[in-house]
Amino acid sequence: MAAHDATVTASDTDSGPLAVICGGGALPYAVADAVAAGGRRVVLFAVRGWADPAQVARFPHRWIALGQLGRFTRLAREEGCRELVCIGSLARPAIAQLRFDLTTLRLLPRLVRAFRGGDDHLLSAVGTILEGQGFRLMGAQEVAPQILVPAGAIGRIRPGDRDRADIARGLAILAAIGPFDVGQAVVVADQHCVAVEGIEGTDAMLARIADLRSGGRIRAAAGIGVLVKAPKPGQDRRFDLPSIGPQTVDGVVRAGLAGIAVAAGSSIAAESERLIALADRAGVFVAGVAGDGTFD
Amino acid sequence: MAAHDATVTASDTDSGPLAVICGGGALPYAVADAVAAGGRRVVLFAVRGWADPAQVARFPHRWIALGQLGRFTRLAREEGCRELVCIGSLARPAIAQLRFDLTTLRLLPRLVRAFRGGDDHLLSAVGTILEGQGFRLMGAQEVAPQILVPAGAIGRIRPGDRDRADIARGLAILAAIGPFDVGQAVVVADQHCVAVEGIEGTDAMLARIADLRSGGRIRAAAGIGVLVKAPKPGQDRRFDLPSIGPQTVDGVVRAGLAGIAVAAGSSIAAESERLIALADRAGVFVAGVAGDGTFD
Repeated sequence: MAAHDATVTASDTDSGPLAVICGGGALPYAVADAVAAGGRRVVLFAVRGWADPAQVARFPHRWIALGQLGRFTRLAREEGCRELVCIGSLARPAIAQLRFDLTTLRLLPRLVRAFRGGDDHLLSAVGTILEGQGFRLMGAQEVAPQILVPAGAIGRIRPGDRDRADIARGLAILAAIGPFDVGQAVVVADQHCVAVEGIEGTDAMLARIADLRSGGRIRAAAGIGVLVKAPKPGQDRRFDLPSIGPQTVDGVVRAGLAGIAVAAGSSIAAESERLIALADRAGVFVAGVAGDGTFD
Repeated sequence: MAAHDATVTASDTDSGPLAVICGGGALPYAVADAVAAGGRRVVLFAVRGWADPAQVARFPHRWIALGQLGRFTRLAREEGCRELVCIGSLARPAIAQLRFDLTTLRLLPRLVRAFRGGDDHLLSAVGTILEGQGFRLMGAQEVAPQILVPAGAIGRIRPGDRDRADIARGLAILAAIGPFDVGQAVVVADQHCVAVEGIEGTDAMLARIADLRSGGRIRAAAGIGVLVKAPKPGQDRRFDLPSIGPQTVDGVVRAGLAGIAVAAGSSIAAESERLIALADRAGVFVAGVAGDGTFD
């Protein structure tokens, strides 16, 4: 044990503090807490307009704006960071939120080309650029594997046969749209796909289902239907893994669904204790599933 | 000419008046007008809660409720109808809108099984049942081919190269989701799929794009992006062909898109003159495209 601990410490010292580029939502702090709990120093690089100032203040941090690659690399070097993770929502910023510095302006043609290819291409391009600057870009799941949803039900409720059939269909639809860089989530109710996530995001999609249900537009009875989330096939897993949090459970409950299924081992649960407590209380399941829909 | 007219008249007399089962929207009256203009009597079977009473009143008509298969077949026989078309939105009625009569109750187990298979299966099952009762179910395009969108731009504006690339991507996505009975429409802007139609329908999807755009969530500049609609591969073309109308043009304009592309020869334009006038005035294109995205 002592030898093992020593190894970990040496490795942490080698790689310095972890830079966490923080977008919106609760995930960045779940990752930062997990890493800090493991004994490694974290420095948050909080993206103005996206990161939550109250949460950011809990950690050593520097503020950056989207588009300030030069400023980020300078500050990260000052902090002694060589490894970084980029986590939280940065989906489709308004042009007005961008603050290009000189480094970014020089790289802009390359970024614009990547932009047109969709999320995956853009994020991978940014990753490649940062690696060219001497940083090592890691997935949140590498630095904080405990935030990944494991296989099986993570709460008290388990999906039934109908739910499993809906999950299998949802995964099949996500696999079919995967090559097109559409969303990572669908809602399937009694084998009928009622929504496909576009750029509106999961919470807005669930709110739509709730509206459609209150308008009598969903055939399946309340308590039927599953939110299914999975990464795109071939997606760069250092970015934008499908994630859920307590607000996802709230959305699923309001939408009258039976539960949530996410790809086991490649989806993230933020605030998982609160998430599980909420799900158990509401009687909805939350489960990690294999890509072929098998469950445990 | 005289011989040809005589043949048409004889054929019309043989098949009697055309029964038009009218759901929501403007399409049923476009079809009824086109058929009546061709000299054939039409009788509308207006679905209560969906059909527009002011429009229905322009034609000989009988009111029915969803679920009254027995009442429908009795009234249609009284009117001497042997051929029928079923047109207009009947999407996901609330249970409260259903009025089952005895005939329907007897058929219910079969309908419920079909219901679970998705729209296509349900509609095909209803079609098969009506044919078992001695009716011939036809597609709107068979009785009023002039309402189909032909290949090529139908207004003044033509899609440019970027639009054509977006159209090709939209058709590819629709082909990929086709087997899953999801929607018939997507929005692609600069190669990025920003929305997939679920059960909310095209108008609600376009309203979502308009909202996302006003919130700065759409990357592509205003004037970029195409609404693409096409039937599912293998879809029963007697039902639920993709359709557009003046309100679709309004939605596309509000969503800041460049235009509309629909599958040529298997999509319907309601009120096409008004639709074209609106599109020309707004500077958006409306085009029929082949399944491979070729345009004319």
